[in-house]
Amino acid sequence: MAVYTDVTADELQAFLGDYDLGDLLSYKGIAEGVENSNFLLHTTRGHFILTLYEKRVAAGDLPFFIALMEHLAARGLDCPQPVKTRAGTALGRLAGRPAAIVTFLDGVSVRRPTVEHCGALGGALAALHRAGLDFPMERRNALSVDGWRPLFENARERADSVAPGLAGTIATALAALEAGWPTELPRGVIHADLFPDNVFFLDGRVSGLIDFYFACTDTLAYDVAVCLNAWCFEPDHAYNVTKGRALLDGYAAVRPLSAAERAAFPVLCRGAALRFLLTRLVDWFAVPAGALVRPKDPTEYYRKLRFHLAVDGPRDYGFDTVPERVTS
Amino acid sequence: MAVYTDVTADELQAFLGDYDLGDLLSYKGIAEGVENSNFLLHTTRGHFILTLYEKRVAAGDLPFFIALMEHLAARGLDCPQPVKTRAGTALGRLAGRPAAIVTFLDGVSVRRPTVEHCGALGGALAALHRAGLDFPMERRNALSVDGWRPLFENARERADSVAPGLAGTIATALAALEAGWPTELPRGVIHADLFPDNVFFLDGRVSGLIDFYFACTDTLAYDVAVCLNAWCFEPDHAYNVTKGRALLDGYAAVRPLSAAERAAFPVLCRGAALRFLLTRLVDWFAVPAGALVRPKDPTEYYRKLRFHLAVDGPRDYGFDTVPERVTS
Repeated sequence: MAVYTDVTADELQAFLGDYDLGDLLSYKGIAEGVENSNFLLHTTRGHFILTLYEKRVAAGDLPFFIALMEHLAARGLDCPQPVKTRAGTALGRLAGRPAAIVTFLDGVSVRRPTVEHCGALGGALAALHRAGLDFPMERRNALSVDGWRPLFENARERADSVAPGLAGTIATALAALEAGWPTELPRGVIHADLFPDNVFFLDGRVSGLIDFYFACTDTLAYDVAVCLNAWCFEPDHAYNVTKGRALLDGYAAVRPLSAAERAAFPVLCRGAALRFLLTRLVDWFAVPAGALVRPKDPTEYYRKLRFHLAVDGPRDYGFDTVPERVTS
Repeated sequence: MAVYTDVTADELQAFLGDYDLGDLLSYKGIAEGVENSNFLLHTTRGHFILTLYEKRVAAGDLPFFIALMEHLAARGLDCPQPVKTRAGTALGRLAGRPAAIVTFLDGVSVRRPTVEHCGALGGALAALHRAGLDFPMERRNALSVDGWRPLFENARERADSVAPGLAGTIATALAALEAGWPTELPRGVIHADLFPDNVFFLDGRVSGLIDFYFACTDTLAYDVAVCLNAWCFEPDHAYNVTKGRALLDGYAAVRPLSAAERAAFPVLCRGAALRFLLTRLVDWFAVPAGALVRPKDPTEYYRKLRFHLAVDGPRDYGFDTVPERVTS
């Protein structure tokens, strides 16, 4: 649950004075987004989301995120569109924090994605990757392969207290990934955190992608691997190849994956699993005993990593049935 | 901040199937209401608030609260109006809890009420009292004079750790209130918790009264005293007689206070201050050390109690300038 920064009506009204959004009718703090404070605004011009950026988001990265949302929305992607002030800026300050207003998107996120959701998500992810191809700004992925060893060193000593053998498995997998991480695959803007709570659906269709605050420039197929981990495993941690196939088919229908991307997929999935295993592990140890906040379970991603370490090859993900594209 | 019960889209869609509210477009957990979980719903029929009643609200009291909101809304009061299912019920079950949907009210609550806000609030409170006069149900006020001694016994031993002399002051004031509590004043439905966060304003006008979950049948002028404590003291704990006069004038313009009600006002204010002092004191000691939830400061109401113990009489509240009503 988000921790809210307190915003008074007077502060907000003064902030809104720079925008052409009409009069403030109501605002409510909403339980959305773990990193930032979010408010749902109702003004005489409609509904909007106000985001106050808390410390975990680096202020220097905000222009990238804002420009990216503008870029994607301008290309028809269903993502929040930053609202500009009359002076033409989309990033201001409110209650001592960087703040932005974006358009409100209807839709509900699904807790247990179906095969159909996975297929729709695959298509939406590919559309995001295509729309981002001509985005001119770059942002390094601090949580890619170069960032994993420092996280591991942070958690190494205590890792086996979470699951016996965890430290050894990570050490071996990490060394292999550092040695064999693919660097020549197609790159572009990736979302990097497109979990089910960041995707809205309406009538089975993706109606919105939100929370671009991990977005960066990286290997596109790695983003597919992140989604496969987040969407295609069952609550008992088994990989659901029907969901995986739907996601990969949905993606390929919009942006076909090359032979090289497919061949690298097991490695990309291992990396994607390790990335979330490591950040969850660090968060697990960072939470003080007795705190009300319950960190996410790292062992979920340990199981996923072990699945990916055990696969025979790309076919295990469901690639074999991806139809060849026919020129129409 | 409210703790949210998790509601999945599937559960919510099934729940909405009993209502004529169209299709679900979105729902967000909102940071409103300390006792219950609240969600802002957007459906094809508009915006609504969904409330899940958590343990602190007795399920047996819910029919009273729901019927009261229906009664008041039907009389034109700006309060949430319960939405009924096609079967005609306004109280259902969702995610294992009693649940209700009410209409959404625009408006923003004020952090620092002005004299004008206090005047408008007084009028709205009197309108609430008038609209409730023919409400047929009754609910005892468990937090009136009979309920204070058990709270005091709970907190007595540790009271002086909060402020030296606190236990003695409470003991003396409580004994006097138990001996002299007015029982013959006009009674009816009172809100009993009409703090600034439960009142919405638009353009200086009261646009909504919310959170009726302390409402009960009790002395009407006691509700005025609760509001005077909550609205007319400055951050430095000084009573602002201009705000008090505005509140009392605003109230009297809609429902004149009788000579007996005015005469009892100092006693009612002491009782209203003691009630919140005691519940805050109990909450203060109930919060475990190191918890993230910060209880409200009991000493704020200790200072208010001491002010009320020191007044010379009703004139100190600003009653002297209340104009006599002229029959029009």
